[in-house]
Amino acid sequence: MEITVAQKKKKLQMIANRNGVSLSTVYRIQRGDGSQRNPKFQTVKQELRLLEEHREGIPGAPVMMVTENALSSHALEFYEQMKHLCMERKIELVLTLEKSVKDDLRRRCFAGIITLTPISVPDEIPVVYLNRRSPSGRESSVCVDGMMNWTKMLIHLKRHGAKRVGIFHGVSQRNVQYYLTAGIMSGEVLLNLAGLPSDPELVCPVTLSPETHAEGLKQAADYFCSLKKLPDTLLVNSDFYIPKMSRRFQEHGIRVPEDLLIAGVHSYLQSVPSASHPTAYTLMEEYHEMESCPCICGVHCFHEMTEAALDLLLEKINRADSIPRQVCFSLKIQDYRFEKGEMKNETPK
Amino acid sequence: MEITVAQKKKKLQMIANRNGVSLSTVYRIQRGDGSQRNPKFQTVKQELRLLEEHREGIPGAPVMMVTENALSSHALEFYEQMKHLCMERKIELVLTLEKSVKDDLRRRCFAGIITLTPISVPDEIPVVYLNRRSPSGRESSVCVDGMMNWTKMLIHLKRHGAKRVGIFHGVSQRNVQYYLTAGIMSGEVLLNLAGLPSDPELVCPVTLSPETHAEGLKQAADYFCSLKKLPDTLLVNSDFYIPKMSRRFQEHGIRVPEDLLIAGVHSYLQSVPSASHPTAYTLMEEYHEMESCPCICGVHCFHEMTEAALDLLLEKINRADSIPRQVCFSLKIQDYRFEKGEMKNETPK
Repeated sequence: MEITVAQKKKKLQMIANRNGVSLSTVYRIQRGDGSQRNPKFQTVKQELRLLEEHREGIPGAPVMMVTENALSSHALEFYEQMKHLCMERKIELVLTLEKSVKDDLRRRCFAGIITLTPISVPDEIPVVYLNRRSPSGRESSVCVDGMMNWTKMLIHLKRHGAKRVGIFHGVSQRNVQYYLTAGIMSGEVLLNLAGLPSDPELVCPVTLSPETHAEGLKQAADYFCSLKKLPDTLLVNSDFYIPKMSRRFQEHGIRVPEDLLIAGVHSYLQSVPSASHPTAYTLMEEYHEMESCPCICGVHCFHEMTEAALDLLLEKINRADSIPRQVCFSLKIQDYRFEKGEMKNETPK
Repeated sequence: MEITVAQKKKKLQMIANRNGVSLSTVYRIQRGDGSQRNPKFQTVKQELRLLEEHREGIPGAPVMMVTENALSSHALEFYEQMKHLCMERKIELVLTLEKSVKDDLRRRCFAGIITLTPISVPDEIPVVYLNRRSPSGRESSVCVDGMMNWTKMLIHLKRHGAKRVGIFHGVSQRNVQYYLTAGIMSGEVLLNLAGLPSDPELVCPVTLSPETHAEGLKQAADYFCSLKKLPDTLLVNSDFYIPKMSRRFQEHGIRVPEDLLIAGVHSYLQSVPSASHPTAYTLMEEYHEMESCPCICGVHCFHEMTEAALDLLLEKINRADSIPRQVCFSLKIQDYRFEKGEMKNETPK
């Protein structure tokens, strides 16, 4: 496709704006007589070169991906996905820890930022949140919606024959952090939506903290055993909880899944790559333990989430007036580990 | 773009599936010797004709749009938007009331459904919810997110100088209906996110019902006047509330916006077309009254919401395995009516 002179000029102006130089500097660099001492010389030159390649809508400057200072396994997974996407589309990607964002922005020009953690950067830099909501509602985000996902899981369990479902969430669901990562959850609305009994005792009140995690999981199992009537199914916040809870149930003489089927939302582990970070190894061990537990699992759509975040960022880079939006992908429900149990199984839709 | 024989066959198979006829029937109709007595003859023939026009990814069968049995002004607005979009893309659109869905589906083949109201149709028909969440999390939806929108409004008001913001919501925020249309709202999380005082008395406990609407609005105004210290700003659920509340405040000797600035999320009215439906006229009157109230207003992105819903439906029609998602557009904030007041005004970002 041929581009007009006006379109070309507009593109050069965008390169100038992005790099904080004048349009005439861009023209000079294009003609080959720009000063190499100009700190923006290399980036402008690269952008111009990419412009010649007719990379419609693809920025010349790199995209920054920001993660928490302590790299988590899910951050690694999102980064792996993003790396592949950017490679395919010939976009340069730079991984940065939260603490280095400011320094990196001083050193180099970035077309935009995808962040897994709250950051504060100048308004003119396009930002998209990944795996969490924008704290101000002013940036687009790709995130998880707890209500949507739990409803989908509950309806799936009901189709599977569940009649009395216990819920163990484990985290305080009405604080700002929880809202930003998973949205706000209401147990009663949830059970009503799924058309399941919403007896208050079916929702376990135990909350977990990193220190009391192992103990809290036992307490939660004890709680359900103390009910007059055991639920037939348990939906828990993370499949991570399942090995320890299953063991505790077995100590109570309750067989999983024969007496009690457990379903959980998958942690970010399965997809941990052959990562070099020590955390990944620790988690990998727990994951192998989890592998042997028959359960129904909701799995996050890492690939689709990452792709949507990159698309939203490119849209924002190319059209400053694009309207921020929040995109939540629903879980894929997998029974694959459940097949190892004795109960019959249908392929979920 | 040339398509291969295999691709062509796949497309013909899709036409066959959509119309519930065999592939050989489709071939017969294509050759021109299908029986015109076959009830699907016309639709298959139309789909074949459109296939020849290389309308990549555009279904031949019409899209159905379903609204509540009592047509509301927002339904009219969404329909107007959808009509224009479908006209541009040469997609046939059929407007159906909820009560007629079953009959219409029996009479004719539809490529997919966009619905403003909960419906129950066979699993194989692609469905996208517009302006509400999917009740099962299994279909994509384009909807409003109360938390995101209110946070954006509050942060905007804070930038405007608001220090003590009162909140009047008026609807029970933790029932299934509210969740499906606006998500779940938490006043405390909201005020915390915006970094505003979250004094419980700032949230007005009055709830409205259609019968007590006018009375409830007065009660809400009275409530804020009864506080020891009046808020400097009020954020209310709908700009519809503003004329009646303003009048009541004036009766209390409080000037709007000089003593108390009111902000609200815009109702669906401004965009009511020159509609023939009587409801539209009634609302138009109330709208003119609203016009004269200076306020800050969050406006829904009808056009973008409608376009996103159609895109999600087309994706589902063309790729049955596409992952359902929930897309929430944020509000555009407008101070245009506020300009008529005496306070200074900035263009919001």
